Amino acid sequence: MHKPIYFDYNATTPLDSEVLEGMLPFLQNHFGNPSSTYSVGYYAKEAIELARQNIADLIGAENGHIFFTSGGSEANSTILKGIAAKSSKKKHIITSAIEHPAILKTCHYLEKHHGFEITIIPANSAGIIDVDDIEKAITNKTALVTVMMVNNEIGSIQPIKEIGSLCHKHNVHFHCDAVQAVGKIPFDLNNLQVDSLSISAHKIYGPKGVGCLYLREGINIPPLIHGGSQEKGMRSGTENVAGIVGFGIAAKLAQEKMHYNFTRIERLRSLFLDKLHSEIDDFSINGDIYANVPSTINVQFSGIRGESLASMLNELGICVSIASACSSTSSKLSHVLKALGKTDDEIRSSIRVSIGALTTEDEINELVRHLKHSVMRLRSFSPKYQILV
Amino acid sequence: MHKPIYFDYNATTPLDSEVLEGMLPFLQNHFGNPSSTYSVGYYAKEAIELARQNIADLIGAENGHIFFTSGGSEANSTILKGIAAKSSKKKHIITSAIEHPAILKTCHYLEKHHGFEITIIPANSAGIIDVDDIEKAITNKTALVTVMMVNNEIGSIQPIKEIGSLCHKHNVHFHCDAVQAVGKIPFDLNNLQVDSLSISAHKIYGPKGVGCLYLREGINIPPLIHGGSQEKGMRSGTENVAGIVGFGIAAKLAQEKMHYNFTRIERLRSLFLDKLHSEIDDFSINGDIYANVPSTINVQFSGIRGESLASMLNELGICVSIASACSSTSSKLSHVLKALGKTDDEIRSSIRVSIGALTTEDEINELVRHLKHSVMRLRSFSPKYQILV
Repeated sequence: MHKPIYFDYNATTPLDSEVLEGMLPFLQNHFGNPSSTYSVGYYAKEAIELARQNIADLIGAENGHIFFTSGGSEANSTILKGIAAKSSKKKHIITSAIEHPAILKTCHYLEKHHGFEITIIPANSAGIIDVDDIEKAITNKTALVTVMMVNNEIGSIQPIKEIGSLCHKHNVHFHCDAVQAVGKIPFDLNNLQVDSLSISAHKIYGPKGVGCLYLREGINIPPLIHGGSQEKGMRSGTENVAGIVGFGIAAKLAQEKMHYNFTRIERLRSLFLDKLHSEIDDFSINGDIYANVPSTINVQFSGIRGESLASMLNELGICVSIASACSSTSSKLSHVLKALGKTDDEIRSSIRVSIGALTTEDEINELVRHLKHSVMRLRSFSPKYQILV
Repeated sequence: MHKPIYFDYNATTPLDSEVLEGMLPFLQNHFGNPSSTYSVGYYAKEAIELARQNIADLIGAENGHIFFTSGGSEANSTILKGIAAKSSKKKHIITSAIEHPAILKTCHYLEKHHGFEITIIPANSAGIIDVDDIEKAITNKTALVTVMMVNNEIGSIQPIKEIGSLCHKHNVHFHCDAVQAVGKIPFDLNNLQVDSLSISAHKIYGPKGVGCLYLREGINIPPLIHGGSQEKGMRSGTENVAGIVGFGIAAKLAQEKMHYNFTRIERLRSLFLDKLHSEIDDFSINGDIYANVPSTINVQFSGIRGESLASMLNELGICVSIASACSSTSSKLSHVLKALGKTDDEIRSSIRVSIGALTTEDEINELVRHLKHSVMRLRSFSPKYQILV
């Protein structure tokens, strides 16, 4: 079998070999429980604290404000349910129409089971929300505003700095799901009035099953998972030591390589778009390419089904996504593309290509070559295109 | 540095080399997101389902009733908070005084924040709870009974079968924290009226950061972590694929080796106890050795501090625990030993020795040799023993 050509870095990334190398000792000799008092456990404890520092450095935080979780979804559920548990009087949450299900479904849960009112801010056709809409939505009942930094399906970057200032002015907790942002674009909490942040390791060449919640000083919430009081009582359960160590190394590497990777990926995107324009007719980019991170390109090929296209590409060993990977096994249409005003047909004819650190020019060329053939082939079955052929 | 002599298998276990070997492909080439539709993701999905089957086989469950979590604590918080969320009228929970903090602290949370009444059933001097006490405590407001199968600190085995029948008779959900039981003693859900069960991988030579919740057919609870609807919506978040694969292999190995390991560990315990009796005066076993799993021996050496003893042993490269590892960084006295009626002094002079699959006769001999010297040395500083010396 040929090595697949991978264009789904937004869904997950391969583990960096340096990350795996750093994890291995903690899957072998250094297996101790970090809560234990003897040396075997101490190595683990020390390694966790080093990882915490690396992650704090990546986002411009103090290490004491990083709490390890099993991933971005847990971090999101922890903060949303935690803020909700503390808010007996303020029962209003503001979020956006293009959030990840980890945010939207937790909001729905709080609405259904805990009497919260949820305001969903729309996005424009570029997939960006308007800060004024948030300002209009804030009331004296608002407990929380939660907006992602970078959208996972189209890559649009949200005005996090402005939302933070606004929330700060109104004394409302501002949570940012930064799973698709941290490690990809420069990020410094010192310039952002963000109260809490979710990060995932496996989106930045770290392992699956680990992430963290950043919590600004002075914010106390009850934990989601109770027990042995690990993570200063904020998150119990024996630590996923190897995973945390891997996350720490991935964070360090992300910081070191960010500029290089960003520039490289930007160039590869240009190559991809140029090639697409020269080789394929009748396609359009969902969202505004200039308002997006360069790693995410959501493309619509009229007259075909994205599902069929992705499946054809898969048979050729090319991995692309038809929706957010987190819900691609469901048959629902992308809520993000809907929020951008796309019709059902437009959504059904879209695929997501996401580029990463290991993507090469050759892979881009291969992708476009196969896209061209597959799109032509699929269009030959399409009533609209059959007339033209 | 010498390889440490490890006697803290209840806190965590080293990864079985076969487990690590099975995990590695999923930390390397098979890195795909299991929710994706292309082949790279499909390998991951398939591997997760195989792991689910192995775990189901180990406990006598259907594979569809196993939901992966980040560990035992998450499984416990999920079921306790989940049952509580569904119980708007029945607001009473029964648990035992010797539960793990993952149960007790979640109960305290539900008491403090959600108006639940918690009944804590005492344990006898052997660390075993009385089924009649549970029966007396059940009212028409009881939503949940939660009792562990094997205690982590002293190893006592609880009457799970009888508690299950009782709960079934009264139509009360029965949850069992089986973290210290599954994989160590024979376990078959077909003979037990258990409605839900928590298991952890790292206690059975699997990786840290993964566990599962078993849920009997027909029991629906809201998830703790919301999002992309992985695990049939019961637990969202991109799956810790390598961790789950490792858990599956660990479960398979646990099943294959259970009888062999149990018999071997039982023999090693006898050796340990015989040696202790012949070499050291003035010690006693906390709990009833005959009512315990053979892997856990909680010993009290009068006239010394367990903390000093453990620290001395650590300097000699021997790892033992002074309390549950999950709270050994806290200075609180063991709530389990308190529940057995031990005085503060008795608790302070206790250590936990836990034996595992890799323990050897030589290690037992070394342990007793060093215990003897360390206990004698510490007693030479003790006022009580100074008079005798």
